[in-house]
Amino acid sequence: MGDDNGLVTQALAGKRYALARLISQVEDDGETARAALAALYPHTGRAHVVGITGSPGSGKSTLVNELAKVLRGQGVTVGVVAVDPSSPFTGGALLGDRVRMRDLSGDPGVFIRSMASRGSLGGLARATGDVIKVLDAVGFQVILVETVGAGQSEVEIARTAHTTIVVEAPGMGDEVQALKAGLLEIADVLVVNKADRPGAANTARALELVINQNAAHDEGRWRPPILQTVALNGQGVPEVWEAVVAHRQYLRESGLWESQERARVETELFNVLREELLNRTLARVGRERVQEWVTRIADRQVDVYTAAASIIGG
Amino acid sequence: MGDDNGLVTQALAGKRYALARLISQVEDDGETARAALAALYPHTGRAHVVGITGSPGSGKSTLVNELAKVLRGQGVTVGVVAVDPSSPFTGGALLGDRVRMRDLSGDPGVFIRSMASRGSLGGLARATGDVIKVLDAVGFQVILVETVGAGQSEVEIARTAHTTIVVEAPGMGDEVQALKAGLLEIADVLVVNKADRPGAANTARALELVINQNAAHDEGRWRPPILQTVALNGQGVPEVWEAVVAHRQYLRESGLWESQERARVETELFNVLREELLNRTLARVGRERVQEWVTRIADRQVDVYTAAASIIGG
Repeated sequence: MGDDNGLVTQALAGKRYALARLISQVEDDGETARAALAALYPHTGRAHVVGITGSPGSGKSTLVNELAKVLRGQGVTVGVVAVDPSSPFTGGALLGDRVRMRDLSGDPGVFIRSMASRGSLGGLARATGDVIKVLDAVGFQVILVETVGAGQSEVEIARTAHTTIVVEAPGMGDEVQALKAGLLEIADVLVVNKADRPGAANTARALELVINQNAAHDEGRWRPPILQTVALNGQGVPEVWEAVVAHRQYLRESGLWESQERARVETELFNVLREELLNRTLARVGRERVQEWVTRIADRQVDVYTAAASIIGG
Repeated sequence: MGDDNGLVTQALAGKRYALARLISQVEDDGETARAALAALYPHTGRAHVVGITGSPGSGKSTLVNELAKVLRGQGVTVGVVAVDPSSPFTGGALLGDRVRMRDLSGDPGVFIRSMASRGSLGGLARATGDVIKVLDAVGFQVILVETVGAGQSEVEIARTAHTTIVVEAPGMGDEVQALKAGLLEIADVLVVNKADRPGAANTARALELVINQNAAHDEGRWRPPILQTVALNGQGVPEVWEAVVAHRQYLRESGLWESQERARVETELFNVLREELLNRTLARVGRERVQEWVTRIADRQVDVYTAAASIIGG
């Protein structure tokens, strides 16, 4: 059931080739993928999902690489999902499949997947969420989700991850302040990477100032620690992992782990419902009649809300 | 009809206070807003909507300000919508209502609106689209839509705008290359602002290289011009407007104006259908039973796709 081709069974048994094919299926969506996800779902909910985000050039990829090495050193299995939204219209990945993680290749305790953008934020978020579920189900204990770029996609990923690491680098100027302000709100752990460069202490102090302002309002809440790293040589990376573990413990003890899980499930259920309901309605009404409505709206004969009400009612 | 309080009539008659209140209503959504939008809709479709986006620190706001002045000099009325996604979780606007556009204040031919993020990209895109419709309906000839930051929201705005201006500044480093790659694809006009700084010619050349690569594949398609400005003193800004006008002419003559309008209408119709269908389904099923489903999914008793199918079927 839900496993016509045996992929799910094979993937759960640890076959890498089956896992890779299963992930491709899930990325593409469709009936087979949904059946597979249904079969996998009871096995999910065990992984710690960690989002890593930050400004371009902050050294996120290197940090992810080093974090994976630290985890492997502790015998922890790691899935890495690299989300690349650089080309939203074409769906082409700018960096292609990552060759950077050579140190980790050949290790069965690591699985790395690059994702191209699916053209819409909704599509990418759906696909990323489903790929995380597959890696979770087959037993990867920690899943590192890295996003390139900055913006709304980071916020979506923060909602998927249990813990979000925001990476900054010194000397990126106040020009990214607006950006930082948005990112700081989603940070559970703050990392000033490239800490061997001038200005690292200043950057850390600036971040601390913002954190202190926020913390004043929220007694007893998690206060994001600010850590300095030189990811290129691994310096400070074990401490980043310790902070992530401390955050996980905080989530567990405060009951936030469960309540955030419920919020994630609700968001996902609503997203699936939206797409399902739309697809069924479009199928019922038929492509031609939908295009007639589009023409009438484009000609200003009817507004979009009235049209929608008619389509649903009719 | 759709104008219980006379706001629509007053706004269409040019009353600014009514316009401001109407926009607030539309931002907040709800029954009244939808009725107002239905009443306004036949008056829309005349404005040229121009998106302005680019990296933080590129000087977008100043360019918008100067573009508005150029347009006012030609007797063209201008609406400005500043979208601020800096604080997606709290909905608070980082920059608050803009005080920067003092030169334009008191001019009835200009209307400026700052928008805070609505927490979700969908919500912000919906609100921005509706505010643009109001400004269009009451007769503003050009609507400049400025976005702070970079990412998926820019792509959504590019889909709303007829013409998209992407602003860069020299010396922002290759660190933003990944970002640029995504933005370049949505650019109809490219501006290197702060062109009095060192490196402006280099930045323009780098952009030209990318454009040439793209252009090789697409004979007869619009080729984004690359213009240099010093927005702070208005230098080069009239030329930017000329490029925008040329792009409009291209859209009109190629038939793209109409086909893109249809694509926009279809996207909007589908978005409204998604939300309407979800709201109706949730209302039918009831909050309690929905929460029961969330619990069952969170407990891994059922997966989200199976749950959605049951909810819709039941």
